[in-house]
Amino acid sequence: MKMPQEVYIVEVGPRDGLQNIEQFLETEKKVQLIKLLAQSGLRRIEATSFVHPKAIPQFRDAKEIISGILGLKDVQFSALVPNLVGAKNALESGVKELAFVFSISESHNKNNVNRTREESVQELEKILSLKKENPDMKVRVSLSTVFGCPFEGKVKEEEILRYIGRVKDLGATTITLSDTVGYGNPKQVRQIIKSCLNQFPSITFGVHFHNTRGLGLANALVCLEEGIMIFDSSIGGLGGCPFAPGATGNISTEDLVFMLDEMGIRTGVNIELLFEASRFLQNNLKDIPLSSHLFKAGPPKGWSYVCTTL
Amino acid sequence: MKMPQEVYIVEVGPRDGLQNIEQFLETEKKVQLIKLLAQSGLRRIEATSFVHPKAIPQFRDAKEIISGILGLKDVQFSALVPNLVGAKNALESGVKELAFVFSISESHNKNNVNRTREESVQELEKILSLKKENPDMKVRVSLSTVFGCPFEGKVKEEEILRYIGRVKDLGATTITLSDTVGYGNPKQVRQIIKSCLNQFPSITFGVHFHNTRGLGLANALVCLEEGIMIFDSSIGGLGGCPFAPGATGNISTEDLVFMLDEMGIRTGVNIELLFEASRFLQNNLKDIPLSSHLFKAGPPKGWSYVCTTL
Repeated sequence: MKMPQEVYIVEVGPRDGLQNIEQFLETEKKVQLIKLLAQSGLRRIEATSFVHPKAIPQFRDAKEIISGILGLKDVQFSALVPNLVGAKNALESGVKELAFVFSISESHNKNNVNRTREESVQELEKILSLKKENPDMKVRVSLSTVFGCPFEGKVKEEEILRYIGRVKDLGATTITLSDTVGYGNPKQVRQIIKSCLNQFPSITFGVHFHNTRGLGLANALVCLEEGIMIFDSSIGGLGGCPFAPGATGNISTEDLVFMLDEMGIRTGVNIELLFEASRFLQNNLKDIPLSSHLFKAGPPKGWSYVCTTL
Repeated sequence: MKMPQEVYIVEVGPRDGLQNIEQFLETEKKVQLIKLLAQSGLRRIEATSFVHPKAIPQFRDAKEIISGILGLKDVQFSALVPNLVGAKNALESGVKELAFVFSISESHNKNNVNRTREESVQELEKILSLKKENPDMKVRVSLSTVFGCPFEGKVKEEEILRYIGRVKDLGATTITLSDTVGYGNPKQVRQIIKSCLNQFPSITFGVHFHNTRGLGLANALVCLEEGIMIFDSSIGGLGGCPFAPGATGNISTEDLVFMLDEMGIRTGVNIELLFEASRFLQNNLKDIPLSSHLFKAGPPKGWSYVCTTL
């Protein structure tokens, strides 16, 4: 067991959580949510998505969101970008870290970003070339449908490794492996993670699980055991992919932090403060039940809120 | 990894699932539910509880339920019994396997079965002595609050091992370790399971997890990795303890079978047929949302229902 002593949580609620919610959450509320998340100790927050407003109207205020949170200290914000235009807009707004997304399966990539995978790789190359004028920009590549595709089913490991290789050759060093629709199981996840770590020791891998079929935390546990230190999760367990039928929420930040705290692994997050963000979200999205188990059940008797600053 | 190639699922929905539901499910519907569960391939079913009808009115028809299912072949039924009276009633009704329950924590035992732990151990001794007149009876000891107590919080490992020792000394050979209120975490579960297996190699251990804080399947996974082969679960994720505040459902049979199938571990259960039981339950308990993720989301694209007879 190479279990890490601390992990970095990437809070994706403001992006993945909100992106398929029809109700438009007002800009100032999105900003307030991000502030509450930051106050809880979350240091990496995917704040929004620079996509075409027709594709995802929820993020038509991406620029204003970023402008509302630029003053927050100690927090590393990222924004999802599906293409060069989005990347430029994000950088202009003041975002330093771009999360470029494309899918390991061709059909999901076409559905999600309207491009072939090859076109996405070329787009990534153009985005990475923006570093010349933006020396402090970072790019995290978020690979979707790594553990299964809603259109194609299982994905071949050689395809996963091939596209990681392509991305690495372009100079990317941080890659998130995503179970976009909750198809992964612990055995498969362990196998794929092992292969990725073995074949690409220079890459920093993160993981992104949805809890669609209930296996999200079991899959995260396996990654922990393999030494992964970066985990995406979403406040309240909100989330899903608007172009992936049947996709439901991300693993919830509350449940993930609880599991890690109880296992003695530091996250820097204070669950009592995190619940303030959960309550704020629930109060402002009344029709959408949050799926965080911990938020619904509350912490165990005699449980002390652990918070060790990272 | 000592991962087993097959596991035995003990379906506890008809007992743990129904026990804290206020709506009385008519006897014939309980019988029908059990028949559907058996048809799906489940070979061990905890069918009911022989408790005082004032304590749990849902099981005032325990005798009639057993009479309705006695004819079913290839299924090993058990009934929960909290005391000698319950054990005698269960045996008279035709039950061959008794699940005797008591708690590792004194306060939960008092709340749950109105006895000290010592009194429960003495009661177990009396129940085991019924073997003289009932040579083919089996007793499984179900230890509650092993991974935490809603009144006392954490439970000491020495207490767990001490009571397992007491139970073993009385001649019991099958013990279920239960996370009655969903307090367990994978690190703690692994540690306790390791200790139990090391210290009591002659005992056959099973585990029983609630998904109260979302960690149920992660905890089950850890047990699998330690070689545990007997898992309790509940159709639809129903369940809870009427005397344990905040307790919610068991891990759901659908999600557990899905995880095991996907990992190539045989259960003998056909999920397509299992869903017939889920639908039957949902149709008859309209106000109670089932918490099985798989039942809500459906299986992945291209997924084939695996069913390898055990």
